[in-house]
Amino acid sequence: MFTPCPTERSRVIADRVERFVRDVVVPYEADPRCTAHGPTSELIDEMRAKARAAGVMTPHILPDGSHLTQLETAAVLKRSGLSPLGPVAVNTMAPDEGNMFLLGKVGTPAQKQRFLEPLVRGEARSAFFMTEPAEEGGAGSDPSMLQTTATQDGGDWMIRGRKKFITGAEGARVGIVMARTGDGEHAQATMFLVDLPHPAIRLERVIDTIDSSMPGGHAQILLDDLRVPADQVLGEVNEGFRYAQVRLSPARLSHCMRWFGGTVRADEIARAYATTRKAFGKLLIDHEGVGFMLAENLIDLQQAALMIDWCAGVLDGGAAGTAESSMAKVAVSEALYRVADRCVQIMGGLGVSRDTIVEQILREVRAFRIYDGPTEVHKWSLAKKIKRDTLAGTPAR
Amino acid sequence: MFTPCPTERSRVIADRVERFVRDVVVPYEADPRCTAHGPTSELIDEMRAKARAAGVMTPHILPDGSHLTQLETAAVLKRSGLSPLGPVAVNTMAPDEGNMFLLGKVGTPAQKQRFLEPLVRGEARSAFFMTEPAEEGGAGSDPSMLQTTATQDGGDWMIRGRKKFITGAEGARVGIVMARTGDGEHAQATMFLVDLPHPAIRLERVIDTIDSSMPGGHAQILLDDLRVPADQVLGEVNEGFRYAQVRLSPARLSHCMRWFGGTVRADEIARAYATTRKAFGKLLIDHEGVGFMLAENLIDLQQAALMIDWCAGVLDGGAAGTAESSMAKVAVSEALYRVADRCVQIMGGLGVSRDTIVEQILREVRAFRIYDGPTEVHKWSLAKKIKRDTLAGTPAR
Amino acid sequence: MFTPCPTERSRVIADRVERFVRDVVVPYEADPRCTAHGPTSELIDEMRAKARAAGVMTPHILPDGSHLTQLETAAVLKRSGLSPLGPVAVNTMAPDEGNMFLLGKVGTPAQKQRFLEPLVRGEARSAFFMTEPAEEGGAGSDPSMLQTTATQDGGDWMIRGRKKFITGAEGARVGIVMARTGDGEHAQATMFLVDLPHPAIRLERVIDTIDSSMPGGHAQILLDDLRVPADQVLGEVNEGFRYAQVRLSPARLSHCMRWFGGTVRADEIARAYATTRKAFGKLLIDHEGVGFMLAENLIDLQQAALMIDWCAGVLDGGAAGTAESSMAKVAVSEALYRVADRCVQIMGGLGVSRDTIVEQILREVRAFRIYDGPTEVHKWSLAKKIKRDTLAGTPAR
Amino acid sequence: MFTPCPTERSRVIADRVERFVRDVVVPYEADPRCTAHGPTSELIDEMRAKARAAGVMTPHILPDGSHLTQLETAAVLKRSGLSPLGPVAVNTMAPDEGNMFLLGKVGTPAQKQRFLEPLVRGEARSAFFMTEPAEEGGAGSDPSMLQTTATQDGGDWMIRGRKKFITGAEGARVGIVMARTGDGEHAQATMFLVDLPHPAIRLERVIDTIDSSMPGGHAQILLDDLRVPADQVLGEVNEGFRYAQVRLSPARLSHCMRWFGGTVRADEIARAYATTRKAFGKLLIDHEGVGFMLAENLIDLQQAALMIDWCAGVLDGGAAGTAESSMAKVAVSEALYRVADRCVQIMGGLGVSRDTIVEQILREVRAFRIYDGPTEVHKWSLAKKIKRDTLAGTPAR
Repeated sequence: MFTPCPTERSRVIADRVERFVRDVVVPYEADPRCTAHGPTSELIDEMRAKARAAGVMTPHILPDGSHLTQLETAAVLKRSGLSPLGPVAVNTMAPDEGNMFLLGKVGTPAQKQRFLEPLVRGEARSAFFMTEPAEEGGAGSDPSMLQTTATQDGGDWMIRGRKKFITGAEGARVGIVMARTGDGEHAQATMFLVDLPHPAIRLERVIDTIDSSMPGGHAQILLDDLRVPADQVLGEVNEGFRYAQVRLSPARLSHCMRWFGGTVRADEIARAYATTRKAFGKLLIDHEGVGFMLAENLIDLQQAALMIDWCAGVLDGGAAGTAESSMAKVAVSEALYRVADRCVQIMGGLGVSRDTIVEQILREVRAFRIYDGPTEVHKWSLAKKIKRDTLAGTPAR
Repeated sequence: MFTPCPTERSRVIADRVERFVRDVVVPYEADPRCTAHGPTSELIDEMRAKARAAGVMTPHILPDGSHLTQLETAAVLKRSGLSPLGPVAVNTMAPDEGNMFLLGKVGTPAQKQRFLEPLVRGEARSAFFMTEPAEEGGAGSDPSMLQTTATQDGGDWMIRGRKKFITGAEGARVGIVMARTGDGEHAQATMFLVDLPHPAIRLERVIDTIDSSMPGGHAQILLDDLRVPADQVLGEVNEGFRYAQVRLSPARLSHCMRWFGGTVRADEIARAYATTRKAFGKLLIDHEGVGFMLAENLIDLQQAALMIDWCAGVLDGGAAGTAESSMAKVAVSEALYRVADRCVQIMGGLGVSRDTIVEQILREVRAFRIYDGPTEVHKWSLAKKIKRDTLAGTPAR
Repeated sequence: MFTPCPTERSRVIADRVERFVRDVVVPYEADPRCTAHGPTSELIDEMRAKARAAGVMTPHILPDGSHLTQLETAAVLKRSGLSPLGPVAVNTMAPDEGNMFLLGKVGTPAQKQRFLEPLVRGEARSAFFMTEPAEEGGAGSDPSMLQTTATQDGGDWMIRGRKKFITGAEGARVGIVMARTGDGEHAQATMFLVDLPHPAIRLERVIDTIDSSMPGGHAQILLDDLRVPADQVLGEVNEGFRYAQVRLSPARLSHCMRWFGGTVRADEIARAYATTRKAFGKLLIDHEGVGFMLAENLIDLQQAALMIDWCAGVLDGGAAGTAESSMAKVAVSEALYRVADRCVQIMGGLGVSRDTIVEQILREVRAFRIYDGPTEVHKWSLAKKIKRDTLAGTPAR
Repeated sequence: MFTPCPTERSRVIADRVERFVRDVVVPYEADPRCTAHGPTSELIDEMRAKARAAGVMTPHILPDGSHLTQLETAAVLKRSGLSPLGPVAVNTMAPDEGNMFLLGKVGTPAQKQRFLEPLVRGEARSAFFMTEPAEEGGAGSDPSMLQTTATQDGGDWMIRGRKKFITGAEGARVGIVMARTGDGEHAQATMFLVDLPHPAIRLERVIDTIDSSMPGGHAQILLDDLRVPADQVLGEVNEGFRYAQVRLSPARLSHCMRWFGGTVRADEIARAYATTRKAFGKLLIDHEGVGFMLAENLIDLQQAALMIDWCAGVLDGGAAGTAESSMAKVAVSEALYRVADRCVQIMGGLGVSRDTIVEQILREVRAFRIYDGPTEVHKWSLAKKIKRDTLAGTPAR
């Protein structure tokens, strides 16, 4: 899709995933079990059984537990995103994809066996308890505002706080909870693994949002004296911010990959529409007003694909890629939104109806411009980097 | 709102409407009777009873049946739009507002008594059966493609065809049906008044769409040998296209007025948010990234208000205002969408949630960029006008 | 031009100015005496002699010394701007227009006779010595950084400092110099009137810039122990910042008026081109890619005209109009630039050539986005106002 | 610059070119011999002597006459563009770069010796006589409108016509002339090599344009019974359109490469400015309004670099790359213009002055959005391709 698969193995997997999504998943888009908070568990189970049968479950993690490179992952995740249901069906979705990545990097063997393996097999879902209610002064885009605390109590940890916008919490079996574990000037944080559901993790409500693809939706959660034994600390105590960074760039980029696929699908639908429907005596695409929009889509998608691959290559080279993934996130999310918006516009009344998936993709990508850091927060951190580089005499490139 | 009320009477009415919408209507926004296809009939009745009591029912039509000027109407309809529920509550909504306008201009006294008066009293709703399914080659943005036919049968007319995107058809009691009544090179059309519901007007489905404020949603309708007596021809036979023009510009402009109000509301919410929430150590509004967006909103809203008033003045001057209302529609709908989009972006996670009305306003205004003619169709017709004027030596102004 | 003349007297004057600019001034655009730093003094004198003969010299100031309202001024200045040479020819140009306005408001009768009257008669030009070299930490967009000082020395004032971007200084006979006259926390400033040329006012260089319409260009000036007698203090000592505010909004708005006219001219040229030249088998305007651009021009120009009139009305109402003129400046300058840019694009190779005036208008309007406060500085101050209003509970309108 | 050099040899050459341009060429930017129609011959000779001494003359063509790959060429040409004078100094400029490429592909050994070798040695300049005056109905963006004719006369060809916007014609020693050589439905064309100056090739005028980097400027030319012997037909008779295609994509892309370098330079200057100048109490870059613009520059430049390399790779793979080079041309030229425009805006008064090279780069890139096909023409041809592909069932990628 717009750039070639980097390896033969990724080509084989990507082709298989694309065929599965187009042939098996797309028809489920009209299934009434697709709710405003994503597909129901029943629907997920049904699609995943088929994914397993087709050999496309968790396709970016190989049978030996190793992970495709980021560049290879891009090839696969883009195809999985051709339907908003695709990532759920083949288990490349957020937040699981990022959680599996982090557990694979940081978990102990015992933690992997207990928490990671059911996720990789697609038998369980997970949630990442990080963001907090901004209205209570908690950590939204600014992690330094983290208010949830974990304090030691005997050999255990006691966690208290409120989390908001916790994607997939409802129905998840594995949770990763981020809490403040140090005081003083330089705040520190620790990550904890928890089994879900858990009586001290109270799902206060699922928030209604503009997007509707994430199973379990986005929840508000009360951590009400949650007791966690020491062996459920993920990695090391006080390393939570560092691990968040490990997870950050690839997770951010995987959003770009998936929604790239979704937007390619929207563009395909708009093209088909513009080459069959007429207005004012000619095919829509023969109106420059429409043809130019499709040309702009083509350019935007090509650039987005190149940015994804470029950033994936940086990550594969071992860099943290913080700036690069910010650049990719801004460029790709904004480009995909322009594309989705043009598709809606080209299709007129049909575009704003739910008769095609284009309408949903517009809503999903609108949310994507905010999820994982709004465009403005990324520009803000890029400006800081530019200042630092310029004052240090480091050229842009 | 951004421009002064043009007359004392409009100021009095506008103030009353604004107070009613803010105090009485806004709380209903959280009512579960707000569905994806607009408020239920029960909710409408409840709100309208309060509107009558508050003296704000159909506020732009005076007790003697006369209509406020367009400029005065702007002052009133903008306030009615401060909630997506406002226009329904006070009966300034589409398509009723346009239908009442048209009936007032063209209906016979008997037709007015039978069809218009219940509408003006807010006891009934109406629908305008004009657009047709593009997938069947019918009239979408291009009215010359009208396929529904009306043929004479004795003293009656027999109407056959399919209509799509018929706003408010479900639950309406009055319908205006547009059908082709002439053949040959220069197609002609006639409008017919019908009582609803009617067994020959079959509601095939209500289309799910990105917007959700219109009562009855947008329906697909089969006109299945609909028999209409001659006295239900609205105005003259074969004058349908001319009447559509009469309705066109004011109806188009009234959309601008209402959604202007909705977007002002979104901006108020975003301002309140930006002046209370902090990130990275300061109020959001003290971040230029946010403050600039609010400044752009201010400018966009001011310009939109000026365009609305300017076009209203043109219509009040007696002109058809086809080009002017195209200009206003493009400028206002695109500006309001930018404003709504910025509000969502400023509010981050809250912006894409349904915890505030901002999310709905974004969706509504997205649809507005297509309803009543997509931006591109208006630019296309403006280009034709520019060509004509330029070749005729007429200056731009 | 896009909005009607508000009064009969303004209509008469505006028509006369338009006819003069189109018939007499436009042909001078090809005169070799148009240099990179504006028309030469000889050319100015030649055009002004004709302007006097045609009764259009300083048309916005009436024979009795009274000033047209701002709304009337808009009608006249827009027409004067139909050629970049027009404002110079009829004496509505910056900085003279603003300087005359300020002198009329603040000068003593003796000061008016000595400094204002030759300006109004178009026999002299003036300069406003305000901005300072940013590279020396002086006052650019931020007047609080004013570094030029005036200290008392006997009954006189001694002024020292450097000024930059002083439009029209070369060739001017009247100068208004802004200097710091108070120390301490709240800096104060005073304005001084000076005769030019003056040995202590050393023109270090005329800066080459992207624009080329201003006579005398933009100069860098050394104020080298400039001695000014007390009776040349303009108005009151320490009231400089307040007077700058008096001048600010109308001067800012008059830029909008003049460049509006210039951009209307560019649009006329682009329309004429698009309706006569063909590509790919049809007239350019019949390509939607071109037609849509002209439609966008039409909308942008209409909105710009409305913003100008709206702000003029605010000023005529007696308000300082700081926020309103910021809004107008941002909206109009950005809109006019989009229009000029589209004109260039429509005209292709001819658009980037100097064979038409369009190329110059693009360059002039590019500079206009920075002159009188860059867009960003205005957004910044609008954001401050929005914060203040929101916290005070003042609605937007 | 933003992407790595693809090979060691390209890295070595690119580094050498960058050092030469920064150290030797940049200081010439203030040389008075830089005219509105590019550097004078004397200045070119002076810079080229230094380029030869530094071993950077025609750096993309190796001593054995072979050409770097397009991907390697990108690395070199981007650096040569760091100054608008760079490409002239090291002989990577348009139209010579494209002419050398074409001659290398199509010329006979004798033609290469006579016409190509002096060009490669940087001892001569060349011009490409293709575009014609649109006002006479000639070939601008639409080559099918070619009006210049070549007819056989004995063993020679007689060429008659008018050419416009012929870059570098003044001062060139080698010309390639495109003329119609077939009639009937499917027009054909032939290219001819000519020595310049030539009495029958009359330079009517050099057009003043917004850009000023091209030596010789852009000329209007009368081909007044130009007699050309048969052995000066370039390649085959009637193959002119095909050869134009051979030249087209790489030439188009090389513009992107060079102006990429120029824009990187502008960005460097803007960064340096924003990290040293203060306004309103802090460094400019600490204002988000400025920092965000620099972040957007970073993203735009990264994307532009990726598009250039992607298209270069397509060409290196042997494809004609017509669509890809259209995509790259649109994306890169529009992105670079946004970058240059932001640099000007960040720098305020200094940005619109000629005190830095930023002002010129803005003007050059403005012209670039039109040269080699305006954005709209490329979108138009991309829309045609999308239609073709969609109807044929070819996916976008």
